[in-house]
Amino acid sequence: MDTTEFRRRGKEMVDLIADYLENIEQRTVYPDVEPGYLRSLIPEEAPEEPDTYEDVVKDIERVIMPGAASPACTELETVMMDWLGKMLKLPEDFIAGTHGQGGGVIQGTASEATLVALLAARCRAVRMILASDPQRPETGITSKLVAYSSDQAHCSVERAGMIAGVRMKKIPTEQSDKYAVQGETLRRMIQEDKAAGLIPFYFCATLGTTPSCAFDHITELGPICNAEKIWMHIDAAYAGSSFICPEFRPLLNGIEFADSFNFNAHKWLLVNFDCSTMWVKKRSDLIGAFEMDPLYLKHDHQESGRYFCTDNSLFRSLKMWFVFRIYGLKGLQDYIRKHVELAKEFESLVRADQRFEISADVVLGLVCFRLKGSNEVNETLLKRINNGRKIHLVPCLLSGQFVLRFALCARTTESRHIREAWQLITQLAEEVMQELPH
Amino acid sequence: MDTTEFRRRGKEMVDLIADYLENIEQRTVYPDVEPGYLRSLIPEEAPEEPDTYEDVVKDIERVIMPGAASPACTELETVMMDWLGKMLKLPEDFIAGTHGQGGGVIQGTASEATLVALLAARCRAVRMILASDPQRPETGITSKLVAYSSDQAHCSVERAGMIAGVRMKKIPTEQSDKYAVQGETLRRMIQEDKAAGLIPFYFCATLGTTPSCAFDHITELGPICNAEKIWMHIDAAYAGSSFICPEFRPLLNGIEFADSFNFNAHKWLLVNFDCSTMWVKKRSDLIGAFEMDPLYLKHDHQESGRYFCTDNSLFRSLKMWFVFRIYGLKGLQDYIRKHVELAKEFESLVRADQRFEISADVVLGLVCFRLKGSNEVNETLLKRINNGRKIHLVPCLLSGQFVLRFALCARTTESRHIREAWQLITQLAEEVMQELPH
Repeated sequence: MDTTEFRRRGKEMVDLIADYLENIEQRTVYPDVEPGYLRSLIPEEAPEEPDTYEDVVKDIERVIMPGAASPACTELETVMMDWLGKMLKLPEDFIAGTHGQGGGVIQGTASEATLVALLAARCRAVRMILASDPQRPETGITSKLVAYSSDQAHCSVERAGMIAGVRMKKIPTEQSDKYAVQGETLRRMIQEDKAAGLIPFYFCATLGTTPSCAFDHITELGPICNAEKIWMHIDAAYAGSSFICPEFRPLLNGIEFADSFNFNAHKWLLVNFDCSTMWVKKRSDLIGAFEMDPLYLKHDHQESGRYFCTDNSLFRSLKMWFVFRIYGLKGLQDYIRKHVELAKEFESLVRADQRFEISADVVLGLVCFRLKGSNEVNETLLKRINNGRKIHLVPCLLSGQFVLRFALCARTTESRHIREAWQLITQLAEEVMQELPH
Repeated sequence: MDTTEFRRRGKEMVDLIADYLENIEQRTVYPDVEPGYLRSLIPEEAPEEPDTYEDVVKDIERVIMPGAASPACTELETVMMDWLGKMLKLPEDFIAGTHGQGGGVIQGTASEATLVALLAARCRAVRMILASDPQRPETGITSKLVAYSSDQAHCSVERAGMIAGVRMKKIPTEQSDKYAVQGETLRRMIQEDKAAGLIPFYFCATLGTTPSCAFDHITELGPICNAEKIWMHIDAAYAGSSFICPEFRPLLNGIEFADSFNFNAHKWLLVNFDCSTMWVKKRSDLIGAFEMDPLYLKHDHQESGRYFCTDNSLFRSLKMWFVFRIYGLKGLQDYIRKHVELAKEFESLVRADQRFEISADVVLGLVCFRLKGSNEVNETLLKRINNGRKIHLVPCLLSGQFVLRFALCARTTESRHIREAWQLITQLAEEVMQELPH
């Protein structure tokens, strides 16, 4: 949608809202629909080709209004998470459908999803142990639990451990392994911890780490977790969107071993913030860990569904519905592919310049690079680049080396922006190198 | 703003966004401002009388754009929380200003605020104990911690305890005490728990409980918590908005003893969901409990501020800024007063009908009432009312009695809606009572 169409559609939407407000007293205050009413009103999968904007807007009255905010919100969320799960070719276990035990739920951020999974895992672990040893005090169990994640994992994983009050151990990674967690390392840590009387219960794998977009080997790690009854959560916050393209889907192989999986649809799938999409194999694991039952939350259909939705007032699934239909699966794939191509274009420019080096494999839309030389010269270059305020780079440390990260993330980025950015970077690099003492 | 003006302003806003998108390449990608730049650009307090809409919109370019999303978002949030804190006449300790140690932060919901306060309290308690007994294992401390809240508290308080992995005890309340937690009861529970080797560390007081809008006696409870070094959090999710009116502000007396305070500005202060406003006396208590320090989150002004903002991408403070200016303090006070008046009007109608009784003091916009008689007849009446889908009531249990709750919550409610609702309720009550076996 270009800005000309945006102006027209935006104004139509303002009128739609005003009409709704003017006529609100003609509507009932509570919906009159049966649980599951929504699923039959819309297709089972996202369209390949875009729908028309008119059709999308017409469906607000046809599909949403009969169910008002609730249950329409929960039902649309369940179905949209199925649509997206199918776009990602998730195993059937993660799809709610009408009879599945798994399904998806929208969180605000990947940090929330990591925490929610950790809390569900803690609850499952405590219940499993109490089932075999009912006399054991619960606080005694919690104090023995141990969780794991990569030393490349996002800091929110460590914070989730702090919040849940459990040990979180970082698994060391190596440059020679491309910063991916190895099965052998996890296996050894588990054995050592069990020998010391601890109870391993949670592993957060990362697909696409923040520093270098590294991918943990989940095909190796998953079976270890399954054998040890360790909850495996997969955090693919950034990389997850790319798995809708068949050529990137192999990066998700091993998902069948996971208990939960999450990525940020708001990061790279054109859905506005916030919309972090999370799937679990067993909805009951999540519901059971947070369930409360006061009278003021009871309703007539208490026992009919047991689906979940984190927030009825934000209605985040509407954004997914609009985006999936306005772009179609093909439009979204095109968008992902374009960013990866632009990253490859930037990588070629770096590789063609002898003064620079690439610091990690370019798999998706992130290019890690640096000037051959000291950390100081790279820090100076970064400062010079960011002070110009034309482009903005966020650095990282990889094996002690200060690395610049060029990340593709704007909807409107074109090849000319890549070339302009590189021209600016090389010009500033030249200045920085000339100022160096010889 | 009526719908005619909404149509005009909404369309102007669509054009503003489209213009921004069309000219985005002319803007820098990173702001060039010093920390604290924003505070001096706007007044220190919310206006008494409404500002014009034109002035508000002009200020987007003047105040926000120079600071882009960040730091403008954090700075506006800090200042808006000061504005609102001053509207509530919070003690100076809770105002950030330029030198204060306290201040406000926006959460998504009151449930989040309760949890965040609990986690900060847990961290403070563990650190205090470790300071005097450095050899004591941390897990051993957590397993002895105990938190308290009213048996009338929202279920999310109990859930916060589950998430944090600490004991949460419910303090019994009595109808004769208007369902408020009494100082003596809390004092006795603390003494018993300490005698049993537990460590009391957190008390969540409620001002305006969900079932009956009861108010815990914080002037009595606060000094007990302070003496025992127990963190007192005040959850005023619904009632908090009313404290901007001088006649309701006494309900907040005792706030000076609290460590943290929260209410939902999205519930009754005309700010769209979500916007749950939370204040603490010591920002460092909150920051210290969640702090992480990776290189990719570092920036040049790391040490200059230490303010907080839960989310840079939602920019929830913008909603507060617009609402406070479009209504002015007086407009917001009028809105609160009108709802309370309408509740009183409904209360009078109930009291004038001998078949009904009022079940709890009507303090703000909630009326708890029931047919004199069995729970069954009241349950039948509720079902009949809600099935009509003209009005919708949520019930509660008070001392074993099934009670109907009439809550004022829509912006456009007028006296005629109250009268129509009461007519409908009495008509259905008549039907229900005629069907009763004699």
